[in-house]
Amino acid sequence: MTVTVTELQQKGAGARRASRRLGFLSTEIKNEALLGTAQALTQRRAEILAANRADYEQARESGLSESMLDRMLLDPERLDAVAADVRAVIALPDPVGEVIEARTLPNGLEIARVRVPLGVIGAIFESRPNVTIDISSLALKSGNAVILRGGKEAIRTNIALAALAREAQSAAGVPEGALQLIEDTDRALVAEMLTMKDTIDLLIPRGGAALIEHVRDQAAMPVVAGGVGVCHTYVHASANRAKAIAVVDNAKRRRVSICNALDTVLVDRAIAGEFLPELGRRWSQAGVDMRCDTAAEEILQAAGVLVTPAAPSDFGTEFLALVAAIRVVDSLDEALEHLDRYGSGHSEAIITEDYSAAERFLREVDAAAVYVNASTQFTDGGQYGLGSEVGISTQKMHARGPMGLRELTSYKWIIRGTGQVRP
Amino acid sequence: MTVTVTELQQKGAGARRASRRLGFLSTEIKNEALLGTAQALTQRRAEILAANRADYEQARESGLSESMLDRMLLDPERLDAVAADVRAVIALPDPVGEVIEARTLPNGLEIARVRVPLGVIGAIFESRPNVTIDISSLALKSGNAVILRGGKEAIRTNIALAALAREAQSAAGVPEGALQLIEDTDRALVAEMLTMKDTIDLLIPRGGAALIEHVRDQAAMPVVAGGVGVCHTYVHASANRAKAIAVVDNAKRRRVSICNALDTVLVDRAIAGEFLPELGRRWSQAGVDMRCDTAAEEILQAAGVLVTPAAPSDFGTEFLALVAAIRVVDSLDEALEHLDRYGSGHSEAIITEDYSAAERFLREVDAAAVYVNASTQFTDGGQYGLGSEVGISTQKMHARGPMGLRELTSYKWIIRGTGQVRP
Repeated sequence: MTVTVTELQQKGAGARRASRRLGFLSTEIKNEALLGTAQALTQRRAEILAANRADYEQARESGLSESMLDRMLLDPERLDAVAADVRAVIALPDPVGEVIEARTLPNGLEIARVRVPLGVIGAIFESRPNVTIDISSLALKSGNAVILRGGKEAIRTNIALAALAREAQSAAGVPEGALQLIEDTDRALVAEMLTMKDTIDLLIPRGGAALIEHVRDQAAMPVVAGGVGVCHTYVHASANRAKAIAVVDNAKRRRVSICNALDTVLVDRAIAGEFLPELGRRWSQAGVDMRCDTAAEEILQAAGVLVTPAAPSDFGTEFLALVAAIRVVDSLDEALEHLDRYGSGHSEAIITEDYSAAERFLREVDAAAVYVNASTQFTDGGQYGLGSEVGISTQKMHARGPMGLRELTSYKWIIRGTGQVRP
Repeated sequence: MTVTVTELQQKGAGARRASRRLGFLSTEIKNEALLGTAQALTQRRAEILAANRADYEQARESGLSESMLDRMLLDPERLDAVAADVRAVIALPDPVGEVIEARTLPNGLEIARVRVPLGVIGAIFESRPNVTIDISSLALKSGNAVILRGGKEAIRTNIALAALAREAQSAAGVPEGALQLIEDTDRALVAEMLTMKDTIDLLIPRGGAALIEHVRDQAAMPVVAGGVGVCHTYVHASANRAKAIAVVDNAKRRRVSICNALDTVLVDRAIAGEFLPELGRRWSQAGVDMRCDTAAEEILQAAGVLVTPAAPSDFGTEFLALVAAIRVVDSLDEALEHLDRYGSGHSEAIITEDYSAAERFLREVDAAAVYVNASTQFTDGGQYGLGSEVGISTQKMHARGPMGLRELTSYKWIIRGTGQVRP
């Protein structure tokens, strides 16, 4: 199981060749390939779970952390969820060929902006093997070829999943080469992949901040990255307390290891005295480590809740754990300044019953997703109706927020004339 | 007139500060600033032309080429055209705040994708001073701050134009700092500008291939580049000869120094015998240097037209001059293969009366603009109804083809809830 740089380049050339035909592939063929994949995920369950079990045992022996082990683990339910996501992609409209706008110019030229695939998508990801199926499904439906490079801890699982998807594609008539998996985890291959700008049109890194930073710095081709979310919820003076408790608690505790989870609660001084003790007691019971500024600490201590004084670095940190920073602010202005300084442009929320405060927050906060009276954990392609997602962009260029099918496309201008020349 | 790196960073910080407010600026204020700019371009004509004359004299003494001298020269008509472009931008709808899509989710969340500015646009350009007004007008209307770095040959003109636009902006109430011009042409400042990824959200290089290549390679922030166009027109076997002659001639000769000008004519063998002699005689009279493959050369020589044998490098070259490569192909397939190999993804055309050939060409050619029976010189933001343009992208990410107002924006997701939490 060793892949040389030459073989990687051959995989790249194969993906590029396939991509030339993928853009004209009928929706029927693409959906048939996806249906075959969904069915095989169920029918070949034993084979996939055996590969995953082998990965898991080896990863555990090598001392992988519990949270990483949990992420890489597949079981029948998780596999069914992956298959359900593939069926969701089948149900989505085909983005390729969509006429974004069209009109007839005064000189009679008929001009249209038509959606087309990007070409070849590269993805570099860690641990979660479902990404192999998620990204390859979205890429196929949007007419793109993919080159996948998953983490070494799940290599057997990824090989089994890619093989199954590739067979389903082949049976449906998808051009060979559309789905490339780098079946080796040598780091030199990632370095090579980052240089292949003539082969890969868009690179998507999914994983920890270090991986994303490395890819963004080194890649020769465009990268859409995100995933790192320092997410705030601001409890405004006029907040409904019950809504505030429920939303803040959900934003932190529903799942802690995902990028849209709450990191910092900002509480308006006017409501801190009634809001914080209730939140503090709940979080204390739930084992949330609360890193408080002086004002929050005083209120919570007076209410008998044990907290930790916040270090300056706690603000602006993505915890991905049962930890939250808490700060008392004097006003919406101060909350907006805090977001401007510490936010990562991912997901931010305000809890308020004040119309003007809500509208101002929506307008002025510069983030991919801005919420009023809702949990930041809603930031997700599935929740937004995009089907599964290839990632959540915190960039402003090309795509922002959850990236589904449309976000894997470009467009071209097509112009039908009758002999027009430009004066 | 020296600007230090520190001063450049201060300009960057000023643009960033202004950009925070530009996103909420009313359309009225933005249009008033643009109207003031258009009026000042007329009223302060003498001052601008004097600055331009001083630039021109110095550039001529320093031995700048005639074509560069022509590009940097302003006269009353050209200045009027610049003012007319500003008025065209006033007439365009404000893209900021446009609701791209909106719906209510089953859980009652109201979700909308709303257009927002990118933030700070950087532009690095050569010679043409109209770019100063074009880009700053489009940036203002789309709610972006700009940092402009024009060529040294037009520095006095650019300073005069930027001052005038800045005064009009200030009088209308646009935040200070929205329009920054680097009033120095030290190359070290460009190097510094390319590193300022926390300040500049998008960098647009406009100029020759070397400038664009340099910026794309070195810039730490996203770059949308284009401008380099190796453009083909394929005369299909079923082409109407009169249309073919008119369109091919226009695509080459209307203006030769622009990126959408024809570089290579591909002629189907079936029509070459009647098409090429007519084109050849016309181009021979017009002084077009025709670089022909063997088949084209034989036909043209037999018709008494003097041509040059094509060197292999003539195919795939952007001439920007009264030069064209000519090749005879056997079929649409061969033409498509040629485009795939030599095209730069800018503008390509087919001349045909055959429905299936036209549709196949539109579908299969991978370029920003694909034409049937029309001149590639139509690829232009003004012609497409986008107002003036900041450039023509040959990338697939973010924007493709002429970039107007919308292409200078991003979007954010705004979600209005009533206390929803994610299950």
